[in-house]
Amino acid sequence: MSARELAGRALARAIREETAAQASALAAAGRPARLVIVTATDDDASGWYVRSLAKAASGVGVECEVVDLGPAADAATIRRELTGRSADPQVSGVMLQTPLPPGASAAELAEAIAVEKDVDGANPWSLGRLAAGRPAFAPATAEAVVRLLAHYEVPLAGRPAVVVGRSTVVGKPLAQLLLDRDATVTVCHSRTADLVAVTRSGELVVAAVGRTHLIGPEYVSPGAVVVDVGTNPTPDGGLAGDVDPAVAAHADALSPVPGGVGPVTTALLLAHTVTAAI
Amino acid sequence: MSARELAGRALARAIREETAAQASALAAAGRPARLVIVTATDDDASGWYVRSLAKAASGVGVECEVVDLGPAADAATIRRELTGRSADPQVSGVMLQTPLPPGASAAELAEAIAVEKDVDGANPWSLGRLAAGRPAFAPATAEAVVRLLAHYEVPLAGRPAVVVGRSTVVGKPLAQLLLDRDATVTVCHSRTADLVAVTRSGELVVAAVGRTHLIGPEYVSPGAVVVDVGTNPTPDGGLAGDVDPAVAAHADALSPVPGGVGPVTTALLLAHTVTAAI
Repeated sequence: MSARELAGRALARAIREETAAQASALAAAGRPARLVIVTATDDDASGWYVRSLAKAASGVGVECEVVDLGPAADAATIRRELTGRSADPQVSGVMLQTPLPPGASAAELAEAIAVEKDVDGANPWSLGRLAAGRPAFAPATAEAVVRLLAHYEVPLAGRPAVVVGRSTVVGKPLAQLLLDRDATVTVCHSRTADLVAVTRSGELVVAAVGRTHLIGPEYVSPGAVVVDVGTNPTPDGGLAGDVDPAVAAHADALSPVPGGVGPVTTALLLAHTVTAAI
Repeated sequence: MSARELAGRALARAIREETAAQASALAAAGRPARLVIVTATDDDASGWYVRSLAKAASGVGVECEVVDLGPAADAATIRRELTGRSADPQVSGVMLQTPLPPGASAAELAEAIAVEKDVDGANPWSLGRLAAGRPAFAPATAEAVVRLLAHYEVPLAGRPAVVVGRSTVVGKPLAQLLLDRDATVTVCHSRTADLVAVTRSGELVVAAVGRTHLIGPEYVSPGAVVVDVGTNPTPDGGLAGDVDPAVAAHADALSPVPGGVGPVTTALLLAHTVTAAI
């Protein structure tokens, strides 16, 4: 027996196609969707991600401008850039790329991104609105998980869902999105006692912890659905997930890395940018 | 065997004493702490609560002004009041009392309360900041639960905590506060399948659901710590919790209703108001 593969490429393509149609209509109306990515790092993985995002934007007709402030930028400079771009009526979406220079806090700086242009849900205000049922963009990665589950018609209402990882960018907003869909949600983390027992209680397990293959077969009950949010760099320049592929032997379904949550995340960032422009 | 009682009155008194000392220093410096409560209802229970809060404020030397807009007030009037009071340098804390008139949304209106004066953590921005580890006031009820647990030295790190109820005012912010203290947190609710099995998995169970005595003995594992946030009116004009008192027979500890979380909540609202004034 082997798990169904929760591949994300077909869903990502469908989202991109809808986004491209909307972007085209906006451009025809003389107000193109425009994403600004503010970056202040020379980190290789970040640079690779920003380039792939810019390429994907171009593919759907969303203008993308990368504002590279360099790794020596201070917090005040970054904040000024985010505030200024948020106030620019030509800009529909603003993203702050991480990592940031030492001493700069992503959650603090992201408060300078206007909520209605916060297409990656990085402003704590967006997270609070999400929890309070008010309009806001969810962080694209967290939303990608629930979109992928919906695409494969995985039922959530009433079912036990375990989120491994409590980050502000994935674990916490994902817990809100799963609660909104009536799942019973457990958030566990590095301090959790008996992590194996907790993850085994999940009919859905989402790993978002950033440790290569942490979730081995013993962490997953037979028949569970497993979503892997991890994107850990491998020595050969590839990507590895947080879930050991051996989990596929007895899980009901497993999302691959790469090719699972990742492409859906990118597509949603562009979809949010277009939504913000409408 | 009978559970330890997690009474809140002594802790509330200690908080009030500290608050009174700070309020006195502020008054001596010519800038007294001042709480404004905006209300727009003729609900009896709400009226009783506002009066008891005003009395408690007076007892610690915090000025308290109740702005009663009446049950016919529209959302725009309420918003204008919250915005105006938030901008008043004489006002240190602003609260919006519920219930609200039909068509008015508490989460939407609470966005008009300045975060630094949002002493009951009602603005979704406060909730998002809480989740993101940024400075904010937590909703007083949610904070009262963790303060009560700390007062009785109940360990949380690594332990399974189950929150019954997913409201924006208690369940969701409480889940954040418990996560901050390294608990493994499960949020369950009316749609949870097999609620008994989930609550029995908790070494800590917090009931915040608003249904009299929903949590019976079968919901609680022997030795668990149980905190009751419920304040349900009884036919004779009293208050009943969400937890059946019979739980005390095998729980390790149980907070009473009344006299548990409630007095701590009131004390914390006043403590927040003084903190906001400093």
